[in-house]
Amino acid sequence: MLSELKEKVFQANIDIYKKGLVIYTWGNVSGIDREKGIIAIKPSGVDYDTLKPEDMVLVGLDGQVIEGAYNPSTDTKTHLVLYNHFETVEGVVHTHAVHSTVYAQAHEPIPCLGTTHADHFYGEIPVTEMMTDEEIGGDYETETGRLIVRTFEEKHLNPADVPAVLVASHGPFVWGSSVDKAVYNAVTLEEIAKMALYTSLLNPDIRGIKQTLLDKHYLRKHGKDSYYGQQNIEGEEK
Amino acid sequence: MLSELKEKVFQANIDIYKKGLVIYTWGNVSGIDREKGIIAIKPSGVDYDTLKPEDMVLVGLDGQVIEGAYNPSTDTKTHLVLYNHFETVEGVVHTHAVHSTVYAQAHEPIPCLGTTHADHFYGEIPVTEMMTDEEIGGDYETETGRLIVRTFEEKHLNPADVPAVLVASHGPFVWGSSVDKAVYNAVTLEEIAKMALYTSLLNPDIRGIKQTLLDKHYLRKHGKDSYYGQQNIEGEEK
Amino acid sequence: MLSELKEKVFQANIDIYKKGLVIYTWGNVSGIDREKGIIAIKPSGVDYDTLKPEDMVLVGLDGQVIEGAYNPSTDTKTHLVLYNHFETVEGVVHTHAVHSTVYAQAHEPIPCLGTTHADHFYGEIPVTEMMTDEEIGGDYETETGRLIVRTFEEKHLNPADVPAVLVASHGPFVWGSSVDKAVYNAVTLEEIAKMALYTSLLNPDIRGIKQTLLDKHYLRKHGKDSYYGQQNIEGEEK
Amino acid sequence: MLSELKEKVFQANIDIYKKGLVIYTWGNVSGIDREKGIIAIKPSGVDYDTLKPEDMVLVGLDGQVIEGAYNPSTDTKTHLVLYNHFETVEGVVHTHAVHSTVYAQAHEPIPCLGTTHADHFYGEIPVTEMMTDEEIGGDYETETGRLIVRTFEEKHLNPADVPAVLVASHGPFVWGSSVDKAVYNAVTLEEIAKMALYTSLLNPDIRGIKQTLLDKHYLRKHGKDSYYGQQNIEGEEK
Repeated sequence: MLSELKEKVFQANIDIYKKGLVIYTWGNVSGIDREKGIIAIKPSGVDYDTLKPEDMVLVGLDGQVIEGAYNPSTDTKTHLVLYNHFETVEGVVHTHAVHSTVYAQAHEPIPCLGTTHADHFYGEIPVTEMMTDEEIGGDYETETGRLIVRTFEEKHLNPADVPAVLVASHGPFVWGSSVDKAVYNAVTLEEIAKMALYTSLLNPDIRGIKQTLLDKHYLRKHGKDSYYGQQNIEGEEK
Repeated sequence: MLSELKEKVFQANIDIYKKGLVIYTWGNVSGIDREKGIIAIKPSGVDYDTLKPEDMVLVGLDGQVIEGAYNPSTDTKTHLVLYNHFETVEGVVHTHAVHSTVYAQAHEPIPCLGTTHADHFYGEIPVTEMMTDEEIGGDYETETGRLIVRTFEEKHLNPADVPAVLVASHGPFVWGSSVDKAVYNAVTLEEIAKMALYTSLLNPDIRGIKQTLLDKHYLRKHGKDSYYGQQNIEGEEK
Repeated sequence: MLSELKEKVFQANIDIYKKGLVIYTWGNVSGIDREKGIIAIKPSGVDYDTLKPEDMVLVGLDGQVIEGAYNPSTDTKTHLVLYNHFETVEGVVHTHAVHSTVYAQAHEPIPCLGTTHADHFYGEIPVTEMMTDEEIGGDYETETGRLIVRTFEEKHLNPADVPAVLVASHGPFVWGSSVDKAVYNAVTLEEIAKMALYTSLLNPDIRGIKQTLLDKHYLRKHGKDSYYGQQNIEGEEK
Repeated sequence: MLSELKEKVFQANIDIYKKGLVIYTWGNVSGIDREKGIIAIKPSGVDYDTLKPEDMVLVGLDGQVIEGAYNPSTDTKTHLVLYNHFETVEGVVHTHAVHSTVYAQAHEPIPCLGTTHADHFYGEIPVTEMMTDEEIGGDYETETGRLIVRTFEEKHLNPADVPAVLVASHGPFVWGSSVDKAVYNAVTLEEIAKMALYTSLLNPDIRGIKQTLLDKHYLRKHGKDSYYGQQNIEGEEK
């Protein structure tokens, strides 16, 4: 069942390992079949060495495990909240990539300090508030998802334009309009986090780039007037 | 004699090299057979290129070399003190991994700044006091072990919950409930040390995470109510 | 047509990826046939995995696409301005290499802090002014090139002696007297940027090296009295 | 002639590249035959890809080229001064390794901040004074050597115990009692420079370790009472 989706999600989990975003089993990727309302997600704590496509666990949007020999990732409920609230999301990635996590641990958003950032994210990457003891002690993983959604609502952010968030004291959740794009965004987030960190150390007074430059770079790669890439071919990048 | 243990310890010594925790021969791993009261440990200063499983040296808990063509690691006495005092320890790893060593050199504990840390260590990683001239001039390697044990006693720390220490001006000693877990903990320590360092540079005012979040993450992976990983399979992670 | 140039430019685009200057398709290299007045440049947003030498796009110095199945790189117009104004330039490289980009994001020039820098660049690497909203909203990529040229004019810099610039809030553009030398200079720029960043963090009071040392090192490798390398063989380095 | 020495020096030049101490041709290693008073050194500016053992250039201690199809490394005269003044030196390495060079650029010695340092160098790594304009304008490479020797004399340092120096605004020169040990010391220097840099950023108040700990670690690996490694086998490490 949904073997193509499982294959994609499996490959994406391998990719975040190969790209250096995770060590051991410290991350998880999921993808969704929107028509069926079912996600495929990595099982919890299984070694990448032995992981196979058919090990991906199928879970309904209501949280019911539909198929799988293993328990789904501990963070499954967080993924589900994102799929339920962010309609354009087709893939979700959670990692503990070093520089992205550093911003989450510092309780600081990643400011948009250059066009590398602006090419991919339409403004700073928000950091959530710290969870309350009630949220932590309650349905923790679901509350993590709710906190993310609330952060986007309060800041009036469009998750399609800013496909990443930093959960305070925890780490990044990243998404995309496909499983592959979610991975691409997670790799990109780590790269811009590294650049932002070093930039801030070199020049602590630096602030985010001007709006016109942000608009220029984001919109030349995204949206109806974009002119980056190839109009005439199908591919990851337009 | 104890060829299985030697093989495990040999492999772990290779692993810390492959994982980038040590260069040249700057580290050592040991493992114990608790029934026989014998540890296997890397020989001192032998190249990894030529190292073989049968080169591991067997040493009794009293420090007597039982079998081996080579001298055991210079740090053997430190390992022995840990095995003698920390009953749940089955493997010990000593490295000069860069970021872990940086905290030891800075005489600062690694604060628990996020869930990556909390998933693996139940609170900050302690740093010892500086050794006295008497300790340095005496039975130095044994005194290093005693200093570690004393640090855990004075801070009322459980070595099973905080399986690592930073020896001031020296570097990390790490352990685990198996040789493999000790290596896993050493790799993890280096990763969280790197994250903590960068976090502190980005936001010098940041402090350790709140106790409820520490409890949540540590206890969802460890102890009787844990729900991370697979209950139904045997593996490194529950 | 111009298949040798295409092959060189193709290889250079692969090189900046292999050297770690770019991830995904975040960079572009071009080369010129000065006699014909035609440049070859990477197509926009095509994966390195599938890129072939014949995919390089040929563009005239007036901006007309002469041959190519794909759109040329979005930054083509910037390259063209550099070729049109800097007569000794035979190859141009644009990357988002981390440390070079950090200086561009910090709006700081890379000071010449040592002989590693002085061996390759005759003084600090300039950073441009921030583009105005009119420039950003106009013919953006052409304006980026003009800004670079204006920076060199205002600072009385010779692009043959300082073959690199940092576009503020964006990243490095680098060039050379051949495609290969442009790549070499881009790799070198990243290395000296890394060194300069760490040097500034270690000693914030450090300033550029004295003129006599800069002269000595730059001129022992460049110009008529140079004595580095082999006088009697053809090669990248004299 | 001296083909064994050439082979060793060739291999060492490859090693510093493989170990990440140099990029392109930015470094050079030499070795000496003390009986004959001849050194073998890398040719200047020849690609590592095409370098062969027989390309090593033989030079007498008086600076005369004895054999070689290529020009010797530009830094040959610096190497010669070291061989002429430091009698126990059998191999010399010059690199632009990032972290070692950072200290040279910052005009700061590398303080001995931990036992990793103390295991290999008997105290801080000195940095030279800045060269005068007369020295730079004179026989520059010879003056660089003289500056190093003067630094050791003025600081009463034994080059056998502190086998490395930082030339201000330039980079490290490292040596050893064999070509291989010189390379080993160069790799070690880079590792301790990295650790020292990060330690200083984490805790700017930290100072060098106490003399008793320095003595303990240096002397347990070096000298007549050392007990690290294998007494009964021949090897890099005792």
